[in-house]
Amino acid sequence: MNNFTFYSPTEFVFGRETETQVGLLCKKYGASRVMLVYGGGSVVRSGLLDKVKQSLTEQDIAFCELGGVQPNPIDTKVYEGLELAKSFAPDFLLPVGGGSTIDTAKAIAAGYYYEGDFWDFYVTPARPTKALPLGVVLTIPAAGSEGSGNTVITNTKTHVKNGLRMPMLLRPKFAIMNPELTMTLPEWQTASGISDMIAHILERYLSNTPDVQIGDRLAEGMILAIMEEAEKVIANPKDYEARANIMWSGTIAHNDTCSLGRQEDWNSHAMEHEISAEYDVTHGAGLAVVFPAFLKYAANHNPHKVAQLAHRVFGVADSGDASADAHEGAKRFKTWLHDKLHLPVNFAQLGVPEPNIELMNTRLHKLKGEVLQGYMQLDADATKVIYEYCKE
Amino acid sequence: MNNFTFYSPTEFVFGRETETQVGLLCKKYGASRVMLVYGGGSVVRSGLLDKVKQSLTEQDIAFCELGGVQPNPIDTKVYEGLELAKSFAPDFLLPVGGGSTIDTAKAIAAGYYYEGDFWDFYVTPARPTKALPLGVVLTIPAAGSEGSGNTVITNTKTHVKNGLRMPMLLRPKFAIMNPELTMTLPEWQTASGISDMIAHILERYLSNTPDVQIGDRLAEGMILAIMEEAEKVIANPKDYEARANIMWSGTIAHNDTCSLGRQEDWNSHAMEHEISAEYDVTHGAGLAVVFPAFLKYAANHNPHKVAQLAHRVFGVADSGDASADAHEGAKRFKTWLHDKLHLPVNFAQLGVPEPNIELMNTRLHKLKGEVLQGYMQLDADATKVIYEYCKE
Repeated sequence: MNNFTFYSPTEFVFGRETETQVGLLCKKYGASRVMLVYGGGSVVRSGLLDKVKQSLTEQDIAFCELGGVQPNPIDTKVYEGLELAKSFAPDFLLPVGGGSTIDTAKAIAAGYYYEGDFWDFYVTPARPTKALPLGVVLTIPAAGSEGSGNTVITNTKTHVKNGLRMPMLLRPKFAIMNPELTMTLPEWQTASGISDMIAHILERYLSNTPDVQIGDRLAEGMILAIMEEAEKVIANPKDYEARANIMWSGTIAHNDTCSLGRQEDWNSHAMEHEISAEYDVTHGAGLAVVFPAFLKYAANHNPHKVAQLAHRVFGVADSGDASADAHEGAKRFKTWLHDKLHLPVNFAQLGVPEPNIELMNTRLHKLKGEVLQGYMQLDADATKVIYEYCKE
Repeated sequence: MNNFTFYSPTEFVFGRETETQVGLLCKKYGASRVMLVYGGGSVVRSGLLDKVKQSLTEQDIAFCELGGVQPNPIDTKVYEGLELAKSFAPDFLLPVGGGSTIDTAKAIAAGYYYEGDFWDFYVTPARPTKALPLGVVLTIPAAGSEGSGNTVITNTKTHVKNGLRMPMLLRPKFAIMNPELTMTLPEWQTASGISDMIAHILERYLSNTPDVQIGDRLAEGMILAIMEEAEKVIANPKDYEARANIMWSGTIAHNDTCSLGRQEDWNSHAMEHEISAEYDVTHGAGLAVVFPAFLKYAANHNPHKVAQLAHRVFGVADSGDASADAHEGAKRFKTWLHDKLHLPVNFAQLGVPEPNIELMNTRLHKLKGEVLQGYMQLDADATKVIYEYCKE
């Protein structure tokens, strides 16, 4: 086990009707001028945004609004937010929505005190030293951004989608999580979110760091719980209890609970980012295509953790042949994603019948280096094979 | 799943040689005058205390010292600490040791700004509204106090041992955790600590709140990991990796990671507190006696969670008879504690050949009420049966 720091200071306020506490929580964390950030659509239609505004008003908190954040959030919305922030001078940001909304707010938070271009933080070694604080009202369990210091933004000019990780600076002060708010999510979005959270766990799980038993067992327990509750929520979208289990799982999948002193991977995410940057597909759906392909490649080249996952989570009996067991585990996971979550598991199903693998692969290695480091060393030939597996 | 708040803001700095960062961390959290709290013995002999003092001095942090904290920490040491604090006027407390040392420091932290007797917080509805901040250098993984807002103190006059839980106020700002510091712990202390951390998980696991799948799976994963690593550490006390897994498990066993929206139990702890308050036994050893007895009683009266534990953790095949499976699970747990951890599992082995059950049971219900609420409703007859099982 490697040395590590675990720091998850977000106050999670979880359960029914918790959104009514948003004004009080903003006040508790020192807010007097709040910039609301949201997508639009359901947050407005459901009346949630009005409730949030009312709660702020009750606490005499002034606010301005940045609406219209889209999935796979883009730099131009961040620039718009930074402009608005310069004129309004907020002391607190309040995204109301899912990962895209929160990531946009984090980008604004990081860029607010910076004299250069916020995009520097995403593609150069420049890092923010100060940021606006933020709180979250979560409506889509998936990205885990409510409990992480991470943000991912796409550059509309270059089609580069990249992340920034600042666990100390960008973790939300609080996150309000009411599972009732997720009950109206369409199946597609629910399933994509579940795929995303399982991927967040697997990116940590796939590691060669030895002797991380506690992290492994926590990760396996999370995936077992998510799979069980996911089937319930797909069968009955109004199942509060299943929604609650899924919502909380999404948070701890990404707040480092199962990272714990190990080298992580994140190469499946990097490969998916190229797909969603080019074809604007839903991130979690893209992961449902990439991850089974990645696991299949790992089954051939470094099967030990995939085999362990197969034994402990996917019910594969230990045959003594790690590679064979890993292949069987990868297959079962793919089947589960397709049959139970109704997600696409190859390019054609994803709506990309003719993927430009050459283009994505070239961009991937331009951004991430000649050889991706992690659970496996992946040069351009290796990632090309994985992208090819995504056609199956 | 019930509504809940999860707030674990402690910065955990984990791994080899991390104790050298103590001065810097104290400074980061605003300390300029530190009161050191420790037991004595190994902390002094090992040179750890000197290292800590040197690190404080390097950061120009003044300090005073309160040594001599004993296991099952007592009120008189808290009064001594409060006196010392009044003259020295620290702005930060720094316990160096295990749960007893940390709990003593928390009691001083809570009592420092209070005009009344700090003991009020432990036995009356009075609660602190302000407390001195504290950081921790942990040397004994067991109590989980480094990541919790809990403190347990024994009143030397009344023999009452009771706890105070203030998750928002009393969580340490930071906890330095170097598994190397635990390598010299004798088997008895190591095993007792492991028993304590498993008990912390089970007190949360034994709950009638339905649909807490994610919490259940995390709890089960933790126990599986602890049992596997515990056997390694008993076999080889110098196994850094096993020590590391055990040390981190002790923290998350008690920082509410597996609490998650459910009613908890804690009646086994309450029953054990009567034993250690009267006979001054090691808390974790007392729990190794009480918990199997408690599970046996539960197997007769409310077996469902014990049966689930038996199936998922103790390898008991599902026979369709929850009570029978729960009995088998309780038996396997007891055997494991005895055979693998070499812990006492009944009063005689604990060194209490003639326990005064009447006395303990009367005090228990005087302190906790006529009927203990939780996973089961336990009146004096019920707890007497459990204490009787502790003889077996």
